[in-house]
Amino acid sequence: MQENNWDIVITGGTLLTMSGKMEIMENSFVGIKGDSIDVVDQIKDTAKASLPAKEKIDASGCVVMPGLVNTHTHLPMVCFRGMADDLPLMEWLTKNIWPAETHFVNKKMVYDGATLAMAEMILSGTTTFCDGYFFEDSIAEAVSAAGMRAVVGQGFADFIMKDKRATEKTMAAARIFLEKWLPRAPLITPAYFCHSPYTCSPETLSRVKEAARDAGILYLIHLLENKDETETILKRYGKKPVRHLLDLGVLDERTVAVHCNWLDREDMTVFTDLGVKVSHNPESSMKLAAGIAPVPEMLNQGITVGIGTDGCASNNDLDMFREMDTAAKVHKVTSLDPTVMDAQTVCKMATLGGAKTLGLDQLIGSIEKGKKADIIIIDMNQPHLTPLYNFYSQLVYAARGADVKTSIINGRILMKDRELRTIDTQAAMKNVRKIAAEIVNRELR
Amino acid sequence: MQENNWDIVITGGTLLTMSGKMEIMENSFVGIKGDSIDVVDQIKDTAKASLPAKEKIDASGCVVMPGLVNTHTHLPMVCFRGMADDLPLMEWLTKNIWPAETHFVNKKMVYDGATLAMAEMILSGTTTFCDGYFFEDSIAEAVSAAGMRAVVGQGFADFIMKDKRATEKTMAAARIFLEKWLPRAPLITPAYFCHSPYTCSPETLSRVKEAARDAGILYLIHLLENKDETETILKRYGKKPVRHLLDLGVLDERTVAVHCNWLDREDMTVFTDLGVKVSHNPESSMKLAAGIAPVPEMLNQGITVGIGTDGCASNNDLDMFREMDTAAKVHKVTSLDPTVMDAQTVCKMATLGGAKTLGLDQLIGSIEKGKKADIIIIDMNQPHLTPLYNFYSQLVYAARGADVKTSIINGRILMKDRELRTIDTQAAMKNVRKIAAEIVNRELR
Repeated sequence: MQENNWDIVITGGTLLTMSGKMEIMENSFVGIKGDSIDVVDQIKDTAKASLPAKEKIDASGCVVMPGLVNTHTHLPMVCFRGMADDLPLMEWLTKNIWPAETHFVNKKMVYDGATLAMAEMILSGTTTFCDGYFFEDSIAEAVSAAGMRAVVGQGFADFIMKDKRATEKTMAAARIFLEKWLPRAPLITPAYFCHSPYTCSPETLSRVKEAARDAGILYLIHLLENKDETETILKRYGKKPVRHLLDLGVLDERTVAVHCNWLDREDMTVFTDLGVKVSHNPESSMKLAAGIAPVPEMLNQGITVGIGTDGCASNNDLDMFREMDTAAKVHKVTSLDPTVMDAQTVCKMATLGGAKTLGLDQLIGSIEKGKKADIIIIDMNQPHLTPLYNFYSQLVYAARGADVKTSIINGRILMKDRELRTIDTQAAMKNVRKIAAEIVNRELR
Repeated sequence: MQENNWDIVITGGTLLTMSGKMEIMENSFVGIKGDSIDVVDQIKDTAKASLPAKEKIDASGCVVMPGLVNTHTHLPMVCFRGMADDLPLMEWLTKNIWPAETHFVNKKMVYDGATLAMAEMILSGTTTFCDGYFFEDSIAEAVSAAGMRAVVGQGFADFIMKDKRATEKTMAAARIFLEKWLPRAPLITPAYFCHSPYTCSPETLSRVKEAARDAGILYLIHLLENKDETETILKRYGKKPVRHLLDLGVLDERTVAVHCNWLDREDMTVFTDLGVKVSHNPESSMKLAAGIAPVPEMLNQGITVGIGTDGCASNNDLDMFREMDTAAKVHKVTSLDPTVMDAQTVCKMATLGGAKTLGLDQLIGSIEKGKKADIIIIDMNQPHLTPLYNFYSQLVYAARGADVKTSIINGRILMKDRELRTIDTQAAMKNVRKIAAEIVNRELR
């Protein structure tokens, strides 16, 4: 270990590496150089702890772990948080969400919404997210300004693209989006996001996949969120949704299927064979009464599963700690088996599992020399986190987003002692409140 | 309104009264005199806001609402938080919880555990709880010292009382407990708690109810937590659990049945007819894979239902905000109906519903002149609570315990700006860590 060499050192915390051996290191030392983890060690020699560095973080009494990876968001929907809850799905979509999106989604709304959503995410320990929405260029700009790591998925849905020319226009815009962001920002990974098999035509589904494959980027799609999707697609195309997508050639190891609440055994075999990844969003699917994904079976089949919160209109928060807790609990009661989705499995799913889902596991998801420094520090010296027998249990079943003290992304401290460094929290809230006021005023008229 | 007359005034917040008309008052004024709410009003005249009072609380940007009522806890089990998770139920009970209880439950452990649990509860907005455990006299002492409001239920279980003489001894101790606490502390309501139909003999069940009825106190009992309880009781007594309890005469409006995950229609009719109350503990029952109570049906049948967290060994926290969120979501997905358990219903269930469950609704559960001043103040000026369309949605689906700024119980400020006033947090954590260390050391030997 060389002296005076690190930009950031984190000392004294209990390190959960989340790497291969799931090593847990008491009294740990993490040295960060530039954007990467340079040293991971234990402080056997106390002198090391006093080594100079540009920024020193004392993590005594804390857990140091990889930042959480939220594998599915629609950031701008933070503007609709709590706008319309407890409604039947179609009423919610057709009378509330879609009209609001038609009237209020624009570049500025998307930028402002994404900024507020990122404030919430950084404050609750998420360091990487995967978003799918429209105007993703504005989201990428917001991500760039905030310094988060993200997969930003430009959205496609034929019910918005009313004719062929509109589709061409969207495809062209998506190409420009790729050309802009693929070479530009190391923290931003562009992707394409087809809304679903029932809102996208077969042509759109396969054309977008083709373009994604050419560019070597991820292809995101909502799949089998609701029970009636199977019937809809069967009626329309004479086959079940997974078979439909399989025949269109859009399923491969760079496809992330979101929700998969009604995935059956046959579908799982297809996923296993082709390496399709799954984003599991339990809270959103519970709140929308959509269904409960068969995640324990997926894991048994060897499918890679990450956890996501979904958008704020259907959750209504972006707290991955809460999502972990729910993910661990809901499958136990559904299967009447308390041993499924144990805390360590869920913790791994929310870190390295999420990174694998997004194809970023070479870069992030664990704390190892050479990986990017995406690290969170959690204050364990609190009544609701006392006593402490098992770190994974504590993080999944008792910790919350608000317990995260410090968030580091790509070697940069974005939050320290609950203070954000790259986002003006008050301004972010003010901007979104203004959008919400416009929505309310329009409704009142 | 008279001047210079209040011990505490709370000004400028949005008041959710949770009373009959569910009135929501912007820019509110609450005046507290002694232990009670003296005035509830809007500040039309700004001069009022500057009226003198012994303690003034500015609640601008905050929600002011009744404190949350946790209808089922086993406080000392905070010492076992995270000790043994993700295990099959019988292994968890027989190899972990019961041995730990046999070796480590004593007056001091119960006092220390209860104190830490109360720190967590006050910090997360709970002002009243209903506990069932052993050595409840020590819990009552701890409650008295902390200044919380509580129903403290002295526990009975025949698998611990090995013979008739032990039963007599326990009954005598319970009488002494009542004699001590019934007349003594206005915030403490003693009760009796029979563990369950499968751990208590018919004689114990009915004798304890008789004594509870004589004293006019609540009778608490775990009921139908697990699916196999029906079979067990059928085999043993030739009838289903609810029929068994009905025939023993223990069901009436002062009986609180906890869990009720497997309550059927016939059972519900009995509950409705006799006014039996239900404590619903969704997170614990999910984590233990016990089942999901048919709460929407119970509400349709007119049964009073309160929310509870259960003990920390099976949750693993005491955060009623999290419990509200889960309660709202889990029933939607179970019934595949997103309209059930709407946010307002759940909010009411966690306040006035809890008070009714515990027979305390004349005193607490809403903010009205004359009721006891059990009030919490929630900081809404935070990214994850922005924007704000609907207060109930925000509280249930997005707020967390950590958002509670101030907690007032019986006219006394127990927490202000996240600082506890009656519990030494560091000492409380230290005491429980010591107990946990003893448990770990014993296991290692």
